[in-house]
Amino acid sequence: MPGETSIQTSLTQLLDIKHPILLAPMAGIADGELAAAVSAAGGLGILGGGYGDRDWLEAELAHLSGKPFAIGFITWSLANQPALLDVALAAGPHAIMLSFGDLAPFVEKIKAADCLLIAQVQTLAQARQVADQGADVIVAQGTEAGGHGASRATLPLVPALVDAVDPLPVVAAGGISDGRGLAAALMLGAAGVLMGSRFYVTEESGAHPVAKAAALAADGDRTLRSSVFDELRGLDWPQPYTLRSLRNDMTENWHGNREALEAVLPAERARLQAAIEAGDFRLAPLILGEGVDLITDSPPAGVLVERLVAGARAQLERHAGRVASP
Amino acid sequence: MPGETSIQTSLTQLLDIKHPILLAPMAGIADGELAAAVSAAGGLGILGGGYGDRDWLEAELAHLSGKPFAIGFITWSLANQPALLDVALAAGPHAIMLSFGDLAPFVEKIKAADCLLIAQVQTLAQARQVADQGADVIVAQGTEAGGHGASRATLPLVPALVDAVDPLPVVAAGGISDGRGLAAALMLGAAGVLMGSRFYVTEESGAHPVAKAAALAADGDRTLRSSVFDELRGLDWPQPYTLRSLRNDMTENWHGNREALEAVLPAERARLQAAIEAGDFRLAPLILGEGVDLITDSPPAGVLVERLVAGARAQLERHAGRVASP
Repeated sequence: MPGETSIQTSLTQLLDIKHPILLAPMAGIADGELAAAVSAAGGLGILGGGYGDRDWLEAELAHLSGKPFAIGFITWSLANQPALLDVALAAGPHAIMLSFGDLAPFVEKIKAADCLLIAQVQTLAQARQVADQGADVIVAQGTEAGGHGASRATLPLVPALVDAVDPLPVVAAGGISDGRGLAAALMLGAAGVLMGSRFYVTEESGAHPVAKAAALAADGDRTLRSSVFDELRGLDWPQPYTLRSLRNDMTENWHGNREALEAVLPAERARLQAAIEAGDFRLAPLILGEGVDLITDSPPAGVLVERLVAGARAQLERHAGRVASP
Repeated sequence: MPGETSIQTSLTQLLDIKHPILLAPMAGIADGELAAAVSAAGGLGILGGGYGDRDWLEAELAHLSGKPFAIGFITWSLANQPALLDVALAAGPHAIMLSFGDLAPFVEKIKAADCLLIAQVQTLAQARQVADQGADVIVAQGTEAGGHGASRATLPLVPALVDAVDPLPVVAAGGISDGRGLAAALMLGAAGVLMGSRFYVTEESGAHPVAKAAALAADGDRTLRSSVFDELRGLDWPQPYTLRSLRNDMTENWHGNREALEAVLPAERARLQAAIEAGDFRLAPLILGEGVDLITDSPPAGVLVERLVAGARAQLERHAGRVASP
């Protein structure tokens, strides 16, 4: 029975989970309900702590208990509200995940709480740095990922990081949407995968229903890395991070046109805010990665996890039979 | 014995080769000697026809016979010298590979010669188009590839293309440098791989010895897609293609600085030409992809092919054992 299959790696052992599948801590999307569903299915639900909102964090943490779970933060933003780390640690997570910024201010407190530290990086140089700083798990995020990221691609980045930080477990992130991607990540030496866009389109996801429908119709050729939405939202993202989203009227108007945007920023910001509230994704950002081509339905997250594992297993078995040794 | 292992796919059947490994037709690098070595090892050597030089093409074709081989052209450049296709077909290749441009003017002649057509694409839309036009094999080239290419990444592009053009065989290109990458490509549904940078650093490669040494020391974090070298060389590449190379003094000076470059173009062009002749890769382009992190030696191409197959096999066997089904 596919439902009884599991894939064991150093990551499943370390995190005490059944399947090497991690929910990307998408801000506003990976809420308590979605994270709980992924954890209940045997993966690791990682709550999307995002830019940091104490009330939201406390409310969503209430959904998580029993099964292993984690909380993810945007590191440079957490530095502005370091007390949120105490809120997160008090909930008893198996791990804290930090992305985009310097881990140094947070490592000691996480370790003291007997909590694992998952560090997401985008380059080989960053991987070496976070390994030295004490990361227990390293997420290698490729440029094809939705949301914030940088320029290196998943396929060559993962094995380079595996070799560089051995024996630390490396998790592949970016462009993985089905069992084929999970199996490929394992072949690259990854101990697991972290997936955002695919979980964006699940029953429990906090995404707007219109956004989920748009994701189902979306074309992976039509995504773009840009700083347009960060400028519009007034988010002070450091270099070299950009946001991958689907191209829409807002990116068509303003990408590569920063000076012109600045001249009309207050009006455009108001227009964006209204579009976000109205669920108008011709203007509001649809934050999805290149893996959207493979997203064709919106199942419960638990069904998706089982399907990923069964799909990976099928690929592994099919190809094992193709290797001939006379 | 690893040396006796083979991996059979629809591609190996179609091309009558032993291993699903294709040499990327790198202009100036994939010469007759290297292509012959890859073919002799059981892969498919693809001669790098590049921008088109009749004398060079005829001389290099003389190295190729007996084993299956192919010739690759830059499609938009071949349109300026269509007679080169006749030269190529007269040599009796198993396939012609076309990249970067409209296949339409060439399909009929290739088919009439009972030759297979391998079409390299960078997007899902292009894949659908070349499938309609009669391509027999589609190469899905990701942005991490060295040399010319576009923006989509290999890992999500391959399975999307596999689903879109089924049952045509899809070959993964970009970021693959070892057996892990080959195994990952198979998991994604690819029927084989096409590799450039890794073959760049082999004994038979036509690359400059200084360039091979630089590739061994290179860091995958330091590559860049840019049009700087095309502008400097006066090559009229169409949108959206850019060249991935290692960052060097030339890209640091001129990338994103096109107007300033145009003001001094004749002098910079002369400086580049002198650097290319002198093998000075602080200025000359080192055309390599993100997979360079995994390149640590310069073996004979045949040894590399066997190593790739053995490495892929080891990954497949290791992971088959990890799937537990109680």
